[in-house]
Amino acid sequence: MTKLDVLPAVLDRVDCDLSASLDRLFALLRIQSVSTDPAYAPYCRDAAEHVAADLKSLGFETSVRPTGGHPVVVGKSGNGQAGKAPRVLFYGHYDVQPVDPLDLWQTPPFEPRLETLDGGRKIIVARGACDDKGQAMTFVEACRAFKAVTGKLPLDITMLIEGEEECGSKHLFDFVRDNAAELKRDLALVCDTGMWDAQTPSITTSLRGLVYEEVRLTCADRDLHSGLFGGAARNPIHVLADILSALHKPDGSVAIPGFYDGVHELPADIKADLADLHLTPEKFLGPIGLKIPAGEKGRMLIEQISTRPTAEVNGIIGGYTGEGAKTVIPGKAMAKVSFRLVGAQDPEKIRKIFRDFVSARVPADCKVEFGNFSSAPAFEVAFDSPALNKARSALGDEWGKKAVTVGAGGSIPIVGDFKTVLGMDTLMVGFALDDDRVHSPNEKFDLKCFHKGIRSWARILSALAD
Amino acid sequence: MTKLDVLPAVLDRVDCDLSASLDRLFALLRIQSVSTDPAYAPYCRDAAEHVAADLKSLGFETSVRPTGGHPVVVGKSGNGQAGKAPRVLFYGHYDVQPVDPLDLWQTPPFEPRLETLDGGRKIIVARGACDDKGQAMTFVEACRAFKAVTGKLPLDITMLIEGEEECGSKHLFDFVRDNAAELKRDLALVCDTGMWDAQTPSITTSLRGLVYEEVRLTCADRDLHSGLFGGAARNPIHVLADILSALHKPDGSVAIPGFYDGVHELPADIKADLADLHLTPEKFLGPIGLKIPAGEKGRMLIEQISTRPTAEVNGIIGGYTGEGAKTVIPGKAMAKVSFRLVGAQDPEKIRKIFRDFVSARVPADCKVEFGNFSSAPAFEVAFDSPALNKARSALGDEWGKKAVTVGAGGSIPIVGDFKTVLGMDTLMVGFALDDDRVHSPNEKFDLKCFHKGIRSWARILSALAD
Repeated sequence: MTKLDVLPAVLDRVDCDLSASLDRLFALLRIQSVSTDPAYAPYCRDAAEHVAADLKSLGFETSVRPTGGHPVVVGKSGNGQAGKAPRVLFYGHYDVQPVDPLDLWQTPPFEPRLETLDGGRKIIVARGACDDKGQAMTFVEACRAFKAVTGKLPLDITMLIEGEEECGSKHLFDFVRDNAAELKRDLALVCDTGMWDAQTPSITTSLRGLVYEEVRLTCADRDLHSGLFGGAARNPIHVLADILSALHKPDGSVAIPGFYDGVHELPADIKADLADLHLTPEKFLGPIGLKIPAGEKGRMLIEQISTRPTAEVNGIIGGYTGEGAKTVIPGKAMAKVSFRLVGAQDPEKIRKIFRDFVSARVPADCKVEFGNFSSAPAFEVAFDSPALNKARSALGDEWGKKAVTVGAGGSIPIVGDFKTVLGMDTLMVGFALDDDRVHSPNEKFDLKCFHKGIRSWARILSALAD
Repeated sequence: MTKLDVLPAVLDRVDCDLSASLDRLFALLRIQSVSTDPAYAPYCRDAAEHVAADLKSLGFETSVRPTGGHPVVVGKSGNGQAGKAPRVLFYGHYDVQPVDPLDLWQTPPFEPRLETLDGGRKIIVARGACDDKGQAMTFVEACRAFKAVTGKLPLDITMLIEGEEECGSKHLFDFVRDNAAELKRDLALVCDTGMWDAQTPSITTSLRGLVYEEVRLTCADRDLHSGLFGGAARNPIHVLADILSALHKPDGSVAIPGFYDGVHELPADIKADLADLHLTPEKFLGPIGLKIPAGEKGRMLIEQISTRPTAEVNGIIGGYTGEGAKTVIPGKAMAKVSFRLVGAQDPEKIRKIFRDFVSARVPADCKVEFGNFSSAPAFEVAFDSPALNKARSALGDEWGKKAVTVGAGGSIPIVGDFKTVLGMDTLMVGFALDDDRVHSPNEKFDLKCFHKGIRSWARILSALAD
């Protein structure tokens, strides 16, 4: 078989094997690997063993590794070829979210089924159908097709399948650090993100970072009667409101001096691609009952939610908040404030300039304390990365539509760890749709997404190996 | 006995009778008339009957009147004299605050005792010793001394002693309105306020009014993930912080247009008297851990807390307020905001301009709802009132020090009702001290305040009758 014949044969194999692929996914979906509830720990181990055995059948040298929590599955293809092809690390997770409220499921969450919707659309329904068992299996099944057709995998692949993603990946950072030599490869691949829409494939090229702070303000050393003290005693809610109000300028930008250091503009062609997506307020904000984008004026909505940094007050409390009236001037008030970071914004610097900004606005006879809850830098793939462009092209070939590259507004901490601990970029390609009910009852994954997801990975692996 | 001899004889009688006065106060203090707890309702009735019987012994025609709650005692002296002497209505209350936490009381709260402190200062310790049984009894004992010396009361007195002051006087407004003909006199007297300090008597010449509002803001129709929506979705905490921050100008004044309509300047001599009180930030704010007056710049601290209007945020809540971090953009946020009013500020107008001020700052795709919890105009006695000046002079004679006239920062709703329903001014004279632990464990009333309080009322009644 010539090199040029391999990919078509692999894709044919994927098509022929789809029914068996589905059976294998269903077998994994039947394992109740809920990671957050200790009662399900045996199921998590079952899932790890199941995944390890499956990978072994594809020629991976596998091991189920202990951690402080649920085990991690590591598989090594071992056919490292000399040459230009990158060695890749595929990351996925075998654990799933809890199923409550159970009574909202139309069928039991761990009894996977195929349902045909009006119009003929077929969906796989089960907990984990999409997140992340279904998505991770698109990659595994692509590997299987290569193995079946060529007897080997197309490039050196290391598998890292963890079991604690849905409860914070608590032990994964240490595991990655302690096993850096095995896990450090040229590129990481993750299949845990979504498509732009049902027709348009997408590569997530950036993730926003996060700094999360708590501000605790104390004025008087007790709660006061607003009749007796009102007009003379400093009200910490007023102080807090002044500070929080000062966080943004009228144009929606963040007013903290130095906040935008390290934020860069997107390349013109990427910006044009984003504009072409035509993400309108009606489409994005309409479903949540809003109409007017609240972020930086002069920025596209899609920039506001993905490639621009933000400051948000996530919580505030002070004084009397029960029913009716109480004429109190509270002694204390508290707010939780977080920042989404992009580009090269430095989380520790952001934390410092925020604290300076707040402290400068606290009256001399009042006191402020800070709590530090989270800190992660932003992540971004270089737009001229060869792997990115190969994947983009491969996705375009499969879906008949140019793949979009978008920034994700949230964080995926492990991707940041791959960068900071292993010095490795991550290519995030996923096939989830907005209506997949991830984390909710009746989670589903479109059969088309599963099928074309396998084909997509086959094309991407082929392109990377080339 | 000539008219000039009467007052010295009455004062002598007060002195001689002090021990018996104290016994009578103790008898009232033993009655557990906690109004807020339904379990104590029989004791409240006992207290009402006790007060009624005592007033009857002074020649009052008394009745214990039912209300929707605890009864009201009404007593009528009936010796209405033709002439210039005003007919007065004395208001007090026989109910007391709950005693919890009971374990902080050094002796049982309903077993009154006299304690001699270091330095010889004697205090009456019991729940209600000051508020308001002890204070109300200063007036009753002054009446008793007149009766003993002259066989009658010095002027036409109607007594109105209620039993629900400590739980909001819920039924008093209706009672006053329904019995307006009986209760409408020329002047009301209240003994439920405090002295300026242990040496300086005080008349409360104004009370601030109150408007209490709740602001409920809705942006998105659900809570959102700040990673996915941050930057585009309006955050109701931001909107609320902007509104609350805009309530005050940098000079500490309230920024709502029209807010100061009806606020007038104090007469120069009253202002000079207030300045002479030298109320310093150290003295007033030091005990609560503050140093810097927060109110209108260019105003004395004593003005800020008594004769100037305020805007205070009494409570705020929105988003996640528990332990740790949650990256949420809430759908809703709420604040409670109240205004202390002075002079002729119109509560309904204040409510309207506040709502307009808020509504104008709510984005077009968000929604605001208001809750109305309280509304009372300010109350003030005219500084040229003859009764005020007679009382001021009488107090000066008794205490050897000029009585101060001050505004109270809080509200006493019944005083507003006397004005609005009965068209009657109220003279508020009281003998409480700042360290009386009113509403707290080990409530006390100085024996000197009780004794000289009786003498003070004797002098005031004499002056008013003159």
